[in-house]
Amino acid sequence: MEAITVGQYNLVYNIFSFTFACMFATFIFLVLSRSNVAPRYRGALTMSALVVIVAGYHYFRIFESWAGAFVIDGTSISVTGEPFNDAYRYIDWALTVPLLVAELVAVLGLARKEAGKLTFSLGFAALLMVILGYPGEIADSTTTRLIWGTLSTIPFVYILYVLFSQLGDTINAQTGEVKTLLKNARLLILATWGFYPIVYLLPVILPSTSGSTIVALQVGYAIADILAKAGYGILIYNIAKQKSEQLPEWNAVGVEAAPAAGD
Amino acid sequence: MEAITVGQYNLVYNIFSFTFACMFATFIFLVLSRSNVAPRYRGALTMSALVVIVAGYHYFRIFESWAGAFVIDGTSISVTGEPFNDAYRYIDWALTVPLLVAELVAVLGLARKEAGKLTFSLGFAALLMVILGYPGEIADSTTTRLIWGTLSTIPFVYILYVLFSQLGDTINAQTGEVKTLLKNARLLILATWGFYPIVYLLPVILPSTSGSTIVALQVGYAIADILAKAGYGILIYNIAKQKSEQLPEWNAVGVEAAPAAGD
Repeated sequence: MEAITVGQYNLVYNIFSFTFACMFATFIFLVLSRSNVAPRYRGALTMSALVVIVAGYHYFRIFESWAGAFVIDGTSISVTGEPFNDAYRYIDWALTVPLLVAELVAVLGLARKEAGKLTFSLGFAALLMVILGYPGEIADSTTTRLIWGTLSTIPFVYILYVLFSQLGDTINAQTGEVKTLLKNARLLILATWGFYPIVYLLPVILPSTSGSTIVALQVGYAIADILAKAGYGILIYNIAKQKSEQLPEWNAVGVEAAPAAGD
Repeated sequence: MEAITVGQYNLVYNIFSFTFACMFATFIFLVLSRSNVAPRYRGALTMSALVVIVAGYHYFRIFESWAGAFVIDGTSISVTGEPFNDAYRYIDWALTVPLLVAELVAVLGLARKEAGKLTFSLGFAALLMVILGYPGEIADSTTTRLIWGTLSTIPFVYILYVLFSQLGDTINAQTGEVKTLLKNARLLILATWGFYPIVYLLPVILPSTSGSTIVALQVGYAIADILAKAGYGILIYNIAKQKSEQLPEWNAVGVEAAPAAGD
């Protein structure tokens, strides 16, 4: 473990706690809001809720691991010898990133067969992207980091291709606000997922012996995770809500006017 | 406790955390998805949800016990003297394995009397299988391990006999996708439950002094548990959903079109 200052320790500590709170709050929001959308879109909200609770659990673990790796005595900080376990983040991504693309497919409301095929290919690409990134993340050598990082980019480019080219027509066929929201969700994937490779490259760009590299890496990943999971989940909820309001039978039930039957 | 390396410690630690996350996420999925199936199949989903939350709880305990048994200082690892408690796994199985067979019977939607009899005999056989395995698991002698392992296989063979012979006609009488899914569930039981005896025999096959035996045992059981409980639970959900869609009265309520009654 590199040497860090008390200030740096506290910054990372607080960011981890903040991230846990964001994920947990979004989980409760999504569970409570499921009944606001038509049943056919609830699967998308269930997946969004799973993503943020799984991420919340892992941030809790990361937080505990960070707190256990250092000991503070007044203004001095030293390492305890317990390693700071970063692997949680990759375990989290292996579970949640495939679900993130599945959410988007689910909220589109495609025919079952088409949706199944898309979910499988996008989900598999997402999992591959995470798995290929890991050997580079734990490597000390810059070359190894760059090689695995590049390999990991291949499935990422494939996902972007599907979202912007193959799914382009489906998204353009939507009407009004739904179309705008779906395009925003797609852009959010591009922007937040594109942020991870930048954070991944920080140890290559910044001097590797510096404690600020660790801090930049942890804070960067935490912000990216909040946007890509909690922010994205709320966007998916808005899409599901708008699409529900376009359904005549759902409007007849009048979710705004009468309580949802038996929910 | 045998000597293990830091890398082996971390691998098992991360696998336990991953297993907990899988079980917990599946629990939330099953609870949220209960309303997507007809009321008559919700019992099967409740049981699936119980299985994964009980398993998740025990993996949390196993995880804590593992973390407490070792202390890491930088790159060196030593034992604390606290024993690693493996018994949690058998306690878990004694509770969950009878429920796994009960899930399958519940999702078949048989007449109450027949279902009750099947659940009792299969559940009892499952419990017996777990109880008979335990004395062998904690034994140091290979002979003792083999004797109890063999005894434990008898109820396992009985369960397979019921699933493939006695229940064969019931399963073949189902239509379309439900039939395929039920056959898959039965195969998943055969494949995953058949995996446990292999893991059970690892200490006999591998050199018993090696830390890698412990690692192989823990990782093997964890993977088998994820597939046999979380994977199986999702399969049971799919069967329940397909069977619900075959019910005219459930389609009339229109879970896809209108709010789920009694959600």
